[in-house]
Amino acid sequence: MLSFTCDYTQGAHPAILERLIATNLQQEPGYGEDVFTASAREKIRAACACPGADVYLLVGGTQTNSTIIASLLHDVEGAVAVETGHIAVHEAGAVEYTGHKVLTLPPHQGKMDASELKACLERFYADASFEHMVFPGLVYLSFPTEYGTLYSKAELKAIREVCRAYDLPLFVDGARLGYGLMSPACDVTLEELAGLCDVFTIGGTKVGALCGEAVVFTGGAPKHFFTIVKQHGALLAKGRLLGIQFDTLFTDGLYFEIARNAIDRAMELKALFLSKGYELFLDSPTNQQFILLTKEAAAALEGKVAYEVWEYMPDGRAVTRFATSWATTPEQISALAALLP
Amino acid sequence: MLSFTCDYTQGAHPAILERLIATNLQQEPGYGEDVFTASAREKIRAACACPGADVYLLVGGTQTNSTIIASLLHDVEGAVAVETGHIAVHEAGAVEYTGHKVLTLPPHQGKMDASELKACLERFYADASFEHMVFPGLVYLSFPTEYGTLYSKAELKAIREVCRAYDLPLFVDGARLGYGLMSPACDVTLEELAGLCDVFTIGGTKVGALCGEAVVFTGGAPKHFFTIVKQHGALLAKGRLLGIQFDTLFTDGLYFEIARNAIDRAMELKALFLSKGYELFLDSPTNQQFILLTKEAAAALEGKVAYEVWEYMPDGRAVTRFATSWATTPEQISALAALLP
Amino acid sequence: MLSFTCDYTQGAHPAILERLIATNLQQEPGYGEDVFTASAREKIRAACACPGADVYLLVGGTQTNSTIIASLLHDVEGAVAVETGHIAVHEAGAVEYTGHKVLTLPPHQGKMDASELKACLERFYADASFEHMVFPGLVYLSFPTEYGTLYSKAELKAIREVCRAYDLPLFVDGARLGYGLMSPACDVTLEELAGLCDVFTIGGTKVGALCGEAVVFTGGAPKHFFTIVKQHGALLAKGRLLGIQFDTLFTDGLYFEIARNAIDRAMELKALFLSKGYELFLDSPTNQQFILLTKEAAAALEGKVAYEVWEYMPDGRAVTRFATSWATTPEQISALAALLP
Amino acid sequence: MLSFTCDYTQGAHPAILERLIATNLQQEPGYGEDVFTASAREKIRAACACPGADVYLLVGGTQTNSTIIASLLHDVEGAVAVETGHIAVHEAGAVEYTGHKVLTLPPHQGKMDASELKACLERFYADASFEHMVFPGLVYLSFPTEYGTLYSKAELKAIREVCRAYDLPLFVDGARLGYGLMSPACDVTLEELAGLCDVFTIGGTKVGALCGEAVVFTGGAPKHFFTIVKQHGALLAKGRLLGIQFDTLFTDGLYFEIARNAIDRAMELKALFLSKGYELFLDSPTNQQFILLTKEAAAALEGKVAYEVWEYMPDGRAVTRFATSWATTPEQISALAALLP
Repeated sequence: MLSFTCDYTQGAHPAILERLIATNLQQEPGYGEDVFTASAREKIRAACACPGADVYLLVGGTQTNSTIIASLLHDVEGAVAVETGHIAVHEAGAVEYTGHKVLTLPPHQGKMDASELKACLERFYADASFEHMVFPGLVYLSFPTEYGTLYSKAELKAIREVCRAYDLPLFVDGARLGYGLMSPACDVTLEELAGLCDVFTIGGTKVGALCGEAVVFTGGAPKHFFTIVKQHGALLAKGRLLGIQFDTLFTDGLYFEIARNAIDRAMELKALFLSKGYELFLDSPTNQQFILLTKEAAAALEGKVAYEVWEYMPDGRAVTRFATSWATTPEQISALAALLP
Repeated sequence: MLSFTCDYTQGAHPAILERLIATNLQQEPGYGEDVFTASAREKIRAACACPGADVYLLVGGTQTNSTIIASLLHDVEGAVAVETGHIAVHEAGAVEYTGHKVLTLPPHQGKMDASELKACLERFYADASFEHMVFPGLVYLSFPTEYGTLYSKAELKAIREVCRAYDLPLFVDGARLGYGLMSPACDVTLEELAGLCDVFTIGGTKVGALCGEAVVFTGGAPKHFFTIVKQHGALLAKGRLLGIQFDTLFTDGLYFEIARNAIDRAMELKALFLSKGYELFLDSPTNQQFILLTKEAAAALEGKVAYEVWEYMPDGRAVTRFATSWATTPEQISALAALLP
Repeated sequence: MLSFTCDYTQGAHPAILERLIATNLQQEPGYGEDVFTASAREKIRAACACPGADVYLLVGGTQTNSTIIASLLHDVEGAVAVETGHIAVHEAGAVEYTGHKVLTLPPHQGKMDASELKACLERFYADASFEHMVFPGLVYLSFPTEYGTLYSKAELKAIREVCRAYDLPLFVDGARLGYGLMSPACDVTLEELAGLCDVFTIGGTKVGALCGEAVVFTGGAPKHFFTIVKQHGALLAKGRLLGIQFDTLFTDGLYFEIARNAIDRAMELKALFLSKGYELFLDSPTNQQFILLTKEAAAALEGKVAYEVWEYMPDGRAVTRFATSWATTPEQISALAALLP
Repeated sequence: MLSFTCDYTQGAHPAILERLIATNLQQEPGYGEDVFTASAREKIRAACACPGADVYLLVGGTQTNSTIIASLLHDVEGAVAVETGHIAVHEAGAVEYTGHKVLTLPPHQGKMDASELKACLERFYADASFEHMVFPGLVYLSFPTEYGTLYSKAELKAIREVCRAYDLPLFVDGARLGYGLMSPACDVTLEELAGLCDVFTIGGTKVGALCGEAVVFTGGAPKHFFTIVKQHGALLAKGRLLGIQFDTLFTDGLYFEIARNAIDRAMELKALFLSKGYELFLDSPTNQQFILLTKEAAAALEGKVAYEVWEYMPDGRAVTRFATSWATTPEQISALAALLP
């Protein structure tokens, strides 16, 4: 069965597996003190043009988000996100489990609007009883968003400006960062992104690694962050597993090269659907494509092509997500073309 | 440099890496719904002779301990452990972070004493103000303990009996389970252990895997355990990474075979130290050996052999830990022998 | 200055103060084991026609809400409330501080709609990834709502039915319960309310007491509730203070009698504003009246009458709240009438 | 029945009740913004000779302790206390419920030893794996202790010095502060105590109030402390209840005067027991007296005199606590004398 259900259906880029084998019996200390992690950190700092950044390698996305958020918030603060933000919906309340509220704003194709953020903050501090409420403590964005969309540089700058005015750290969840940066629609570079936020993540799990999310605190990590990671159960004993993967991904631009493959395949996939007259739920410039699928099409693909159904339109068409990845091949797109009515 | 600092200085058993490569491009669903995890679960259930067990594969030890403990305790309950228990000392308060106290008993070479446990529970319920106190909610043991020691079957049964009498789940932390079961001093089998506790873990990280701890709820998992795992940031997107590793380790007894190697090397290492007149801090039957090292010996090994120093004796000798693992070779023991004065 | 800012600007009903004096030197055990609390519990059970209910007396509203909610929810569950619900906005994230998300529905003049609740629950369980999300674990309503509005018996029954279908406890926050039950618009009795929910509170703080909220678990309290109360810092050492107050309030219907005074004054106040041509923001049948106040009126009242401003209309009028209480006198309404342009 | 079970068996000092009545209908804002609280704060600052102190009035002891501790600790920090400290035993894990471990030291008649504290901190930072452990984040003492004992000024200074060296805030729980300060054995004044710690509490509940604990941050409160109090459910709507009580207690030295009564009665009680040949469990200089009671004595008092039994000696004598309070009369001591064999 051909599967476009998500971008983590396969293992790792072969270069990673080869590196795991090559280094397997080298004895290294645990907990991120190994030479691979040190090298990965250095390469990530260089790629971000952020020599003063603190880089940590964690295992999974939800873990990374809730660890970062808890490390940045005061007890009475919450994280501001759009209603469709991953932390607001699909992380089983991991942020709340650490004691913090997720404060939500309406999404616009998955994105936060800077002026709405500003208005919300103005309203908060204008409220006579704001001291009885959860304080906005940081702003959380995903790049790309859960709907595959991207913030423009101008949009990020506008949000950044609001954050500055209210002294709020800006956290960009880059679980699919590579797929954002490699999109032809993206007008921001990794360096620029690093310059615009206080902390961001570079997703490995969905971009060629077996697991792993790199956390980049552009201006230095919060106090005791290592121990916070440990306390959250996010510290890998064999940190080498993460170090080797990120060191490989950030050698000779592999991370970006394989991310571009996903984008190329996604654009082919989008063109394919459009050419056959399907409508898009929204026009995503990244590796997640949202297609309105008729019942007939669904019937034709059944048992042959897997994808995700997000919801249903009033007219009965399914809002579906087709995701490509670093591993998607042109042959898989062709096979889909052959099956699609 | 020869390193005996811990049992996670190297990568994974080669069979695991080969399996990762062989299965790399097979498309599988995430979050433990893959075929490898299904197969691993089945094999683990069979190895435990526990067909009704619920098996989950998590990533790391601290994560696994705090997730299990939080899933079993009522809000006002705590986990009973010895003072040297891993959850009581070296997990950065991960249990407390989930809101629960660790209630401690004195350790005996790292072990809990059943009669002391019973006395503590009797005292608790005899206290007129026990409703103002944290209720004992489960009993936590490690097997082997943090000092490499093992509970005998009789000792486990005695603790089990106390747990039954007070309706307390018994949780056995098997981060180094293989090294316990393969010790010549061990008189309990995996099946027997499974029969004696409500939940236990099978450590992968320290016994040949890159990462991974299998959780076995012998009588079924607590309600919503999958979501609890997610909430704790312990759900791996590419669950295949864990599935493949445990499926490989539980094929043809690989887990036990490689654990035995560590034990064989540890016994050689112990014999080596004893033969040269060194004293043991305690007589460990597993892969962690605790040696009293003179200053002269420490000076001779400096820069050539790495090990851990736990504390110092009044006479100046260091209490050191030398750990062997699935990957330790007879050549490494010989090399140590050549260097040891 | 005449104040209508809220319903807790004054002390306690004189009968309570007299009772405190009369019983002052009687020696009684602490923590709710005193004879006054026992008597109060019995009277509350009788008033609710709920002989099997468990009644606890806590100190304040936010404390009571978060203690109840935490006692009822599984770790991965959240409380469903409307966006304007007190727990969702004005309790400083006390619910999230205990690890639980507040899941919100749109409010209708402060009320939850049963069919929207049902649709939300259907959508949740229809979502393929619901196990990655926070489970709805209880339904929270306030009666009266934060906007002074009331659920009809039919509305409560409809919500109750949805709760039953999804096995969700129904929790009614009665911080102003008396003011709801004594409203001429109220078609539900205390007995009926008790019969419709799993737990509700009887607010003392806003209805004649110095402090205190009675918690009524109609079908019995959750396990270890006493200790949960202690753990939340909500257990009063001198429980007699709460016992005496509720015992007095539930003797000869004092609670209802003084609540009716607030309603009578509120209806006079509403009539006053309407008679002078002011518009209501919404038509509240209870002790909180929401008036649209022109700038001219505000200027006229400035420094003479205190009230709360909630927000501003696009036309510049203020949405104001005038609250009456058990202690509001006809003279105060007359004084307001004399000042109001 | 004559009761010496605890120091909170009766209501409030009559002056407080009179003041409640006198001010009852005065309209004041809630949440501690009332004139009584403002006045109480000023008087407390003056009594402590601490003009820059931030003073908050909370309701109960456990609540106050866990709110203060959570406000001062970083997520990975714990509170250092002796094993018999109230927060370590009798607060139902309220501190752990906020995510923090209580790190314990051995008690010496309920007291912490400065040199043991220092040794513990040295050991912590000397441990190679301290970053995997809970950091000591503050030091908690009770004054008097749970065993009625007092720290001398020299002992407090020694502990203070260790705290300074490790940059740890010192928190003194004064639930029975008055009974400590008024003891003839006390060599520290309120001003001196304030100068020696970063935060301390002045217990009202046990010293003449219906409820209430004053929190004094000698160098200013932590950020957002008001909202933290709200989040912990510790913010009283009718803050006047606390304001009036503390304002009364700190007018003309009433707090100290009534505390002295308890001490006078306690010394008479102690003398009585000693004169009849009873042994003390320990020699307490404050209002809690710990007497070793024979079975015969217990039989003689049964049904006539109430007291608390803490534990039993190997010889069968009960370790009992007899507590006096602001309200204990010389007649009650005489009545006990008449009954005691």
